[in-house]
Amino acid sequence: MSKTYGTLNPGKRVLMGPGPSDLHPRIYQAMAAPLVGHLDPYFIQIMDETKALLRYVFQTDNDLTFPISATGSAGMETCLCNLIEPGDEVLICVGGFFGDRMAQMAERHGGKVVRLENKWGRPFTPDQVQEALAGCRPKLVGLVHGETSTGVLQPLEDIVRIVHEHDALVLVDAVASLGGTPVKIDEWDIDACYTGSQKCLSAPPGLAPITLNDRAVTAIEHRKSPVNSWYLDLTLVKKYWGEEHLYHHTAPVNLIYALREALVLIHEEGLENCFARHALNYRALKAGIDAMGLKFFVEEAHRAPMINPVLAPEGIDEAGIRGRLLNEYGIELGGGLGALKGKAWRIGLMGQSSNKDHVMLCLSALEQTLLAEGHTIKASGVTAASEVYSN
Amino acid sequence: MSKTYGTLNPGKRVLMGPGPSDLHPRIYQAMAAPLVGHLDPYFIQIMDETKALLRYVFQTDNDLTFPISATGSAGMETCLCNLIEPGDEVLICVGGFFGDRMAQMAERHGGKVVRLENKWGRPFTPDQVQEALAGCRPKLVGLVHGETSTGVLQPLEDIVRIVHEHDALVLVDAVASLGGTPVKIDEWDIDACYTGSQKCLSAPPGLAPITLNDRAVTAIEHRKSPVNSWYLDLTLVKKYWGEEHLYHHTAPVNLIYALREALVLIHEEGLENCFARHALNYRALKAGIDAMGLKFFVEEAHRAPMINPVLAPEGIDEAGIRGRLLNEYGIELGGGLGALKGKAWRIGLMGQSSNKDHVMLCLSALEQTLLAEGHTIKASGVTAASEVYSN
Repeated sequence: MSKTYGTLNPGKRVLMGPGPSDLHPRIYQAMAAPLVGHLDPYFIQIMDETKALLRYVFQTDNDLTFPISATGSAGMETCLCNLIEPGDEVLICVGGFFGDRMAQMAERHGGKVVRLENKWGRPFTPDQVQEALAGCRPKLVGLVHGETSTGVLQPLEDIVRIVHEHDALVLVDAVASLGGTPVKIDEWDIDACYTGSQKCLSAPPGLAPITLNDRAVTAIEHRKSPVNSWYLDLTLVKKYWGEEHLYHHTAPVNLIYALREALVLIHEEGLENCFARHALNYRALKAGIDAMGLKFFVEEAHRAPMINPVLAPEGIDEAGIRGRLLNEYGIELGGGLGALKGKAWRIGLMGQSSNKDHVMLCLSALEQTLLAEGHTIKASGVTAASEVYSN
Repeated sequence: MSKTYGTLNPGKRVLMGPGPSDLHPRIYQAMAAPLVGHLDPYFIQIMDETKALLRYVFQTDNDLTFPISATGSAGMETCLCNLIEPGDEVLICVGGFFGDRMAQMAERHGGKVVRLENKWGRPFTPDQVQEALAGCRPKLVGLVHGETSTGVLQPLEDIVRIVHEHDALVLVDAVASLGGTPVKIDEWDIDACYTGSQKCLSAPPGLAPITLNDRAVTAIEHRKSPVNSWYLDLTLVKKYWGEEHLYHHTAPVNLIYALREALVLIHEEGLENCFARHALNYRALKAGIDAMGLKFFVEEAHRAPMINPVLAPEGIDEAGIRGRLLNEYGIELGGGLGALKGKAWRIGLMGQSSNKDHVMLCLSALEQTLLAEGHTIKASGVTAASEVYSN
């Protein structure tokens, strides 16, 4: 093999897609802290701090709160495969790509899945869920809080109450939302929730924090059959992350260093300030997009502030513009997923990527690129966004 | 939450346990290269290079060769859950902790598992496998190449031939062995194999490289039922790692940077030189351990050079010595697992941790600590090891 391999040289990116989002310089430092063993007393202290910090961000006292050693979708699968047994009825609210993924996974684990479908871009109403529950008796109802594919933020409180009136568990996908908007596990009484490390938490991709309350843990304890995944079996994993620290797998130590540091950054900023920052940068982006005459996919009332599908104007090559932004500015936007493929840009304002510089750069680059492609802009998005920051 | 969280400060370790092993400084740099998206053209190039480098280390041309986005045990589960369907007969050779884990996982995925058990510390003979195959008709036979729990290196060639004569697939666990001793996937005709990133490859923990040949891929294509894990379903994962680059999950980009760099280091050194280095450092360790009058758990002919259980002498507190080595020298040795719990140290010489300095430091530290605990040493291990390096 005579091929030679060069030095890694990715160049700088401005990550404004659906995740991963930008890493704070302290995250790079944390990842490069000296590696220790997965059972080292120092690492056990880091594990404990990571759990405490995750409880802070999830706004919960749940004991079972830790990261799964795999990416966000494995967090989804962990919750489903532990909470569902073959033959269990399950209701999944499918209003986008990730709701559909949840339904697919629930089926893989033997769930008898009832799909409550919604047109993409609209949240589910409590009435819809109430009605669906009149026709089935699920063990679990699954919902996506921030649908990365559509940009919808799903209100949860009323639906959780209704689901509990029907004696079912509530599973929430907070992959896009956690850290960017309130996810009040205890106050809203959510039974199980998972997220990914690489979105509003702004840690590197590769970990899936989860949290389960006592109701969910009891459901697992009362299973009649073993979980059909060994790697994701919480009964085993929790013995490693719990006080026993019993070897299960070799934890990705450097990633957990990085996740802890990302959580420390959120803790230092304060959760409420972090949410306010995400909201402000969304408002500035919105002002700019509106001024330019571009259209959001989702109605204003239902938007997730951290992920914004914006429709490509008629006659504009969505992927072509994204390519130019990447090549000429280093800006990564997301393309449309599923029903939005080829039709929208997904502009992410997540974690460290939710900041004024990113918003201003993105709007100016988008503006100039659209002009260069012969598209007319209604008014300057940059000016409009700037006014939001000045007020 | 008034608690403050300090700066990460693990201190320096000398990692000589069963993995993770030491990271080369270039690995820390690679992890800290700027994060790009998981579908970024630059990252796709890195994925392609990673696949090519893995083929070099696995000594294979297998198309399906890439890392699973989770730790080594998830590599084990990936192979099992894709290759086994409920009701399939499976023969697992259980001669240690990880053979047992393989059998447990195969059962989770519906396999009718026949366990061929061996006393810990002994490899399986071709005759044993031949005999076992006279009494069952498995779809797959699973074997551990380097048993991290016992330190046995299992010869594979003859057994693979016998298994194929019985029309079964061969699955090999090369978590401990790959990169430290030859694993000739194509020449030995192994159908499926997995490893972990953190042992002889000396990358951070968190990835599980796998390789499957056409026979194994065909077996997956002919499945009657879907794989019961969505995250580990190779039919889906290979569309992301293959030419389509279809989104499946958000790959742990920084870990893949690091794995690629670790593989580049092996490629630069040359696989044969890398094996020779592992063999030399084992010989030096052996000379030292023998000189001191300590005993290896495994007979000389069957030892895996990268992981060496050494029996704690009568009356010596195994964990106490390990604790002193960690606190006084920063040296991490592994404790005994399963049947060896409390009875042995597992001394790892894996990847970057397989070097002269580590061997000399470990022997001198072990020598001094045993003396300090009142144990008598037969002769100096340091002198004996030094002679090996001088020859």
